[in-house]
Amino acid sequence: MGLIVQKFGGTSLSDSERIHRAARRAIRAKLNGHRVVVVVSAMGRSTNMLLDLAREVSGDPPKRELDVLLSTGEQVSMALMAMAIDAAGHEAISLSAVQVGLFTDSAFTRAKIQRISRTRIDEELSAGRIIIIPGFQGTDARGELTTLGRGASDTTAVALAAVLGADLCEIYTDVKGIFTADPQIVPHARKIDTLGYDEVLEMAARGAKVTHSRAIEFGRKYGVPIHVCSSALDSEGTMITADSSNLETPAVRGVTLKEDLVIVTLSGNADQSGLMSKLLSELAADEIGITDITTAQAVDRVAGAHFSFAVGSSDLRDVRIICDRLTQERSGARVNVEEGLSKVSVVGVGSRFHASATAKMLETLACAGIEPRAVSTSEIILSCLLPMQQGEVAIRALHEAFALSSSPQGLNAI
Amino acid sequence: MGLIVQKFGGTSLSDSERIHRAARRAIRAKLNGHRVVVVVSAMGRSTNMLLDLAREVSGDPPKRELDVLLSTGEQVSMALMAMAIDAAGHEAISLSAVQVGLFTDSAFTRAKIQRISRTRIDEELSAGRIIIIPGFQGTDARGELTTLGRGASDTTAVALAAVLGADLCEIYTDVKGIFTADPQIVPHARKIDTLGYDEVLEMAARGAKVTHSRAIEFGRKYGVPIHVCSSALDSEGTMITADSSNLETPAVRGVTLKEDLVIVTLSGNADQSGLMSKLLSELAADEIGITDITTAQAVDRVAGAHFSFAVGSSDLRDVRIICDRLTQERSGARVNVEEGLSKVSVVGVGSRFHASATAKMLETLACAGIEPRAVSTSEIILSCLLPMQQGEVAIRALHEAFALSSSPQGLNAI
Repeated sequence: MGLIVQKFGGTSLSDSERIHRAARRAIRAKLNGHRVVVVVSAMGRSTNMLLDLAREVSGDPPKRELDVLLSTGEQVSMALMAMAIDAAGHEAISLSAVQVGLFTDSAFTRAKIQRISRTRIDEELSAGRIIIIPGFQGTDARGELTTLGRGASDTTAVALAAVLGADLCEIYTDVKGIFTADPQIVPHARKIDTLGYDEVLEMAARGAKVTHSRAIEFGRKYGVPIHVCSSALDSEGTMITADSSNLETPAVRGVTLKEDLVIVTLSGNADQSGLMSKLLSELAADEIGITDITTAQAVDRVAGAHFSFAVGSSDLRDVRIICDRLTQERSGARVNVEEGLSKVSVVGVGSRFHASATAKMLETLACAGIEPRAVSTSEIILSCLLPMQQGEVAIRALHEAFALSSSPQGLNAI
Repeated sequence: MGLIVQKFGGTSLSDSERIHRAARRAIRAKLNGHRVVVVVSAMGRSTNMLLDLAREVSGDPPKRELDVLLSTGEQVSMALMAMAIDAAGHEAISLSAVQVGLFTDSAFTRAKIQRISRTRIDEELSAGRIIIIPGFQGTDARGELTTLGRGASDTTAVALAAVLGADLCEIYTDVKGIFTADPQIVPHARKIDTLGYDEVLEMAARGAKVTHSRAIEFGRKYGVPIHVCSSALDSEGTMITADSSNLETPAVRGVTLKEDLVIVTLSGNADQSGLMSKLLSELAADEIGITDITTAQAVDRVAGAHFSFAVGSSDLRDVRIICDRLTQERSGARVNVEEGLSKVSVVGVGSRFHASATAKMLETLACAGIEPRAVSTSEIILSCLLPMQQGEVAIRALHEAFALSSSPQGLNAI
């Protein structure tokens, strides 16, 4: 008899029929002899509807009240899920973050989990109940309601699984698992059976719409096996564990596309008086994530040194404000922005990966008539920036070139 | 500088514009030098929508989870109200029942308030904030969420006003105040300026759609002045205090109509082996309110004694189950049900009331061709049951006969 944490996303709970289906999954796990903790997101689009309500009332709502508002979404789901399990003749109880003792810091709208109490959970599990817990929310030491940021219900689930020493954390969603590429772009993309935490993290960071990164980080840190699977089908999804690589594992696992990026370049006297480090620390303080940092020393007095990085277009406004202020303080420094870019990444693993994948990637793009704007590599990732309109063509060409549609037993064409 | 509790009902908060209007009322009271506590209901029809959701999921949802679900309605309102006050440049904070310490018993869906803590409220008021508290909900000693029953936001407001020693409890609603009759039935019904708690209680019990009875009972018990007024208009509403009667006060204050009643009659051996007291105690245990109890001794062996009472048609199913069981245990007892009745009541006060009002009521009904089914009187009420289709005609005739459209300074035609 084990302990399973099951997490159901908004699309898996969008109407009463789906709620009953989710309830049946929890009950089945219970009947299989497991203790079951269920984590629920808000139903369907209800979080967006609540945000719309807030925007109607205030252009800049206080974050504390925004959390009070948004947390009602999961509260509705958890009550309905408990009702559905009860209606099927099994005992269930919903517990709020305060009732569980799911403590966070006091950073409203982006709180971090600090501690989860086991007392009440153990008590209810011992009484034979299925426990329903709202994802995405917590409470600070004073009893203020907090939320963990969009998509953080996965984080709640994995953190609970870690604290409870669960045997498995199941993330039920509207896709069959994690794919070799976005099936919307590459129709014959293949579901991947197993992946390592690092691979999923890299894929998520590079645009794959998979499980929330913080959840995977929790999973990696505490060694929680995570199964991402479909709430509608009874098929196996993608199992995420510490290390998925073995002899059968192909070197290249998938390709990802991240759209709507911007390259910001500071040139002129960009190297003077700590401009770069000042900028980086200000961006970090505002929690703006940047990637693809490149620097070049001054080759002549006119061009000066330059320093560039990529950032999501939604962060551009904030980045511009910081850059403009810093460069105005320093004569000769200039800011240049190049919009409309995408990043294509190849995610791989193992010693065979780097050997030839970079060459193959560049060859493939060249054949497709695409000239990459910038190339970067890491232990398990090859990325390049390119014009946004060429992103999907590039993804399809790379998926084909690395033969990702073939079964994992097949050869990877490196 | 005083303390004011303001309560806004669902129709007063049904969209962002109305929320801002309610916020302006709170701010105005603050600017007038008062400390302000606001109690909010769920927006518009949101409680009904949540109930519909619950019914879709379960035919008989557990009451604990129903409370978890329903309480989200007020939580949405309280956050939006705090946002609206903040957007207008004033400090506000929403506090949940747990955060306030609004303790109830553990009777889910119909909990009773036991204790309200002042600590957090006093702290936030001293910091100059307008406090927003959800109506209708509380917490039991264990931290379980409870609700007080439909319409109980008024009760929360008056209970808070009592505990805080507020100078006034303002109930903002979608009507201008309490009227001499339902303006939907009697178009020239007149708003009443002042009423006593007892009069309002009698009117509410007899079908007037006014403030929730439990709220008025709280008000009477703790001497809280209650002002029922329109959230849309800036006119005076109806002030409810301990005693509104004085020389200027007319003897008859209003007429009310309560529809859809049923008379249940037990006859045959209805007096044997404590049938009546057994029935009354079972009805009380199920919290089924009955009125117009009449008993008659047996005049002959065939008719036997009989015992009848009136009950709302929504309770008929429960009442029948109890009656059938009790009569089956006793040979010769029969149950008869007469449906489709209404009760018309005349609410009055003072020594002039009883003297001639009963005669006038019966005369008026007779002139209108209505034969009352049963008449009952109390200190401040004359009531009679009559066929439902004659209810509105009776109300209009009585309103006219007692000259209730005249200003309160005018003579009451008794």
